Amino acid sequence: MISIVILGTGNVAKHLFDAFTAKGDVEIIQLYGRSQNALSYFKNQINTTSDLSNIKEADIYIIAISDDAISVVSKFLAGKKGLIVHTSGSIPMYALPNKHRRGVFYPLQTFSANRKVDFKKIPICIEVENEDDYKLLNELASAISDNVIQLDSDQRKTLHLAAVFANNFTNHMYHIAHEICIQNDVPFELLLPLINETVTKIQDLSPLEAQTGPARRNDAGTLDKHLAQLKYKKHKKIYALLSKSIRKTYGKKL
Amino acid sequence: MISIVILGTGNVAKHLFDAFTAKGDVEIIQLYGRSQNALSYFKNQINTTSDLSNIKEADIYIIAISDDAISVVSKFLAGKKGLIVHTSGSIPMYALPNKHRRGVFYPLQTFSANRKVDFKKIPICIEVENEDDYKLLNELASAISDNVIQLDSDQRKTLHLAAVFANNFTNHMYHIAHEICIQNDVPFELLLPLINETVTKIQDLSPLEAQTGPARRNDAGTLDKHLAQLKYKKHKKIYALLSKSIRKTYGKKL
Repeated sequence: MISIVILGTGNVAKHLFDAFTAKGDVEIIQLYGRSQNALSYFKNQINTTSDLSNIKEADIYIIAISDDAISVVSKFLAGKKGLIVHTSGSIPMYALPNKHRRGVFYPLQTFSANRKVDFKKIPICIEVENEDDYKLLNELASAISDNVIQLDSDQRKTLHLAAVFANNFTNHMYHIAHEICIQNDVPFELLLPLINETVTKIQDLSPLEAQTGPARRNDAGTLDKHLAQLKYKKHKKIYALLSKSIRKTYGKKL
Repeated sequence: MISIVILGTGNVAKHLFDAFTAKGDVEIIQLYGRSQNALSYFKNQINTTSDLSNIKEADIYIIAISDDAISVVSKFLAGKKGLIVHTSGSIPMYALPNKHRRGVFYPLQTFSANRKVDFKKIPICIEVENEDDYKLLNELASAISDNVIQLDSDQRKTLHLAAVFANNFTNHMYHIAHEICIQNDVPFELLLPLINETVTKIQDLSPLEAQTGPARRNDAGTLDKHLAQLKYKKHKKIYALLSKSIRKTYGKKL
């Protein structure tokens, strides 16, 4: 059985805690949080501590905290023999102190406080400095996910950047669509079947093939009408830039 | 039983044809297409014509053709007593000749040639000039969809514009994510669970609440690193503009 210590009390830490707790083959022996208050969710379920000099021995330490705190907190693990991993998409493995066995355990998903997620399908991107540690980290990841993949720090950085477009920016598009609907007294919910189909499409087609709409057809009349129809300058700017980008993608002269 | 004539042979016409054919309570008595070639899909199933002076009498004429051809084709229906509707999101009802009983039958979905869609959940937005025609058009729409809603031309125009953000622009975000992955030898498919969860989230949460990511957190360090990491100027521009828009949305000073 693999023994682990989780450092962190945020969304990623909570979701990992829940996922590992539900599995028999991993034992969480301790959870660290900055304050007693942050630990309240875990206290009755597990040994917790808010003292970094009080961390127990374990096979793996999972540092699931904000990016800028990773290097500071990891320094407190000096002398530990276990494998130390962080869970960040954009921080390289080498940000961890080099006295340690180091690695990365990056679950590629968006985690919210009150939403359950099914880890089985979440890609967990792992990286280790010493190939000897691969088996151990792979076993840990495979305990909760069927989708474990080995990526180096550069590939993970790429994925993290691509995820901003695929997740954060698409959500912002939904937000703008929502604003436009509200302004004009149209229920946003009418768009949900369309939104769902847009995503279902790219499970089979590449996004390049799946593209539709006035910019794809180079329908200048509709593009102009839409620009005139938008009330906010900020929306006009985004509409213009993205339409131009789509037209360029399909080789239309501008 | 409602008798209809469909004018058009594109994706919308095909999907409507298939949906009505599967239902017992609507009879498609004719289908018009510009050429014998365009009619090949329908020929063995239904009476077809490529001659606009040869259109039969019916309760409803559905004009499912490109926006700019609607007013031209509808002129050929002079003298018909049936209700004439088009299927466009952005064209007002009044683009149809005013001698007619007029209306709009707008299914809010993205239709591709080889993808089946389930009409039951697709919102069909209907509009009629004379309230007397509402019952008839509502009955037609309800034959294939459980989600029929009455919207006027302005509301439909709003919805069509919002759909560009919610569908066309999100798909373009997937395309850019795809390009970034390909350039750096990372499988795009790793992003699919994240993309699916992004959409699942907004079935319950508003997009405003669902937003995550470096721009939402006002994490200037990651934003700068991402901008430096992007290889194409066009991607940098989009990243910068959308991040700025997200930061503004959440009241961050820029």
